[in-house]
Amino acid sequence: MTQPIFILSDHTGITVEALAKALLGQFDGADAHCAVYPFLDTPDKVADIIRKINQVGQTQKTQPLVYSSMVDEALRTQLLSCQARVFDIFDTFLPALSQSLHLPSGSHVGRAHGMGDSATYDQRVAAVNFALQFDDGGRIKGLEQADLILIGVSRSGKTPTCLYMAMQYKVCAANYPLTEDDLNSESLPAPLRPLRAKLIGLDITPDRLHHIREERRAGSSYADLAQCRRETKAAKALYGTHDIPYISSTDYSIEELATAILQLRKVARVVQ
Amino acid sequence: MTQPIFILSDHTGITVEALAKALLGQFDGADAHCAVYPFLDTPDKVADIIRKINQVGQTQKTQPLVYSSMVDEALRTQLLSCQARVFDIFDTFLPALSQSLHLPSGSHVGRAHGMGDSATYDQRVAAVNFALQFDDGGRIKGLEQADLILIGVSRSGKTPTCLYMAMQYKVCAANYPLTEDDLNSESLPAPLRPLRAKLIGLDITPDRLHHIREERRAGSSYADLAQCRRETKAAKALYGTHDIPYISSTDYSIEELATAILQLRKVARVVQ
Repeated sequence: MTQPIFILSDHTGITVEALAKALLGQFDGADAHCAVYPFLDTPDKVADIIRKINQVGQTQKTQPLVYSSMVDEALRTQLLSCQARVFDIFDTFLPALSQSLHLPSGSHVGRAHGMGDSATYDQRVAAVNFALQFDDGGRIKGLEQADLILIGVSRSGKTPTCLYMAMQYKVCAANYPLTEDDLNSESLPAPLRPLRAKLIGLDITPDRLHHIREERRAGSSYADLAQCRRETKAAKALYGTHDIPYISSTDYSIEELATAILQLRKVARVVQ
Repeated sequence: MTQPIFILSDHTGITVEALAKALLGQFDGADAHCAVYPFLDTPDKVADIIRKINQVGQTQKTQPLVYSSMVDEALRTQLLSCQARVFDIFDTFLPALSQSLHLPSGSHVGRAHGMGDSATYDQRVAAVNFALQFDDGGRIKGLEQADLILIGVSRSGKTPTCLYMAMQYKVCAANYPLTEDDLNSESLPAPLRPLRAKLIGLDITPDRLHHIREERRAGSSYADLAQCRRETKAAKALYGTHDIPYISSTDYSIEELATAILQLRKVARVVQ
């Protein structure tokens, strides 16, 4: 019996989608169908989704679960009339926060993933553009403006990690690939030498690198396991010689790498 | 009196950081300091943060608030001994979910933002690489493999939106800039003609475009307000002539645009 789960929001639904993912991840073999319905921002749209929820519950003879983030109190109240167990993040957490802050809560739709202050938002987009410009050693001039610089062999995970840090945390992250020539030398590539304090290395196992490169250029010498072994070994030696902190990307997601790098660099994650 | 708020996690803390941001966004002029502490995954690390929380509470003579996502039950119980109001997302939501699913919950750290299934993860990275390759009309061959193609004038928000959709939703999103030549013609650019069903236009007000372009190339004819007016008007006319759905990026964040585009294209957001 598949448990229907509805993720509802009067805005993007991104927060409550992440919450549902974290919760569902705690159950192995859960038979659930969980889908997100964003922008339910009028009584008509809420009425439509209530009809759908009730219909699914009746057809499947099971009570649906609803996780919602409805800022608008009237819409939230309306939603409560559906035949489902409803957990709204604002209903759950706002009263205590309001008490602690000695403030009444407003009804501000879209504060989590909206544009917010447009200057701050522009900084985020500027950080993404910075990461794109300084991707893969594409630009050297201005590299010193980077908050941090990821280095590593080709396909060790530098690009997506930089883009994520830029997008989520407004961090100007550059990345610079360690080429064959760099790895054969004992010294750091010239553009990186004055910027050693900003460097973070990515390490990866030869097997994982081989797998990733094979997806890209199957059978190439670039993807060859022995080549991957040589490059990763030389990169790690370089990090050691120059005392560059490094993190393994082998078993880590973009989000985990970004979190670990910000922690390593003591970049505070302050929620505003 | 600044209210101290601690965001704690035994993993990345990204989910509970988004939750805190959504909650705090409901209070205008809230005087709070809210910071994230990730990877609190050992009793020692939890003991350290408890000491810090208690110290802050004593020094500031106010009870701190804690929002946490601690999957490990023992660490969660340990955390409850701190002198703060603690709201853990697993404590709050897991019991009802467990009941509905007729399953006990496990203790799987990192299911929300970890690597998960490595094939699925590789698809995400592949989608990011796709978005990078097919950015700004950089590549035409293979464009038909895109799930969707954003079109618009230079600096209308195409690139970050494509990257976000790729990173979060594994959507292979390409983007194609409408150049002066394209805009002077009544027909669609040749590479886009067979792919009309995949196109989504971005619209932007001349003022906002002017502001963004000025940041990039101040005083240039590219950033000139009259030029911005001509281009945005011609782009909108093109969308109308060819019946291409379009969205305004003027007041919308990357996340809002991505949400709206996926909804427009009926791409289901299924949480797995």
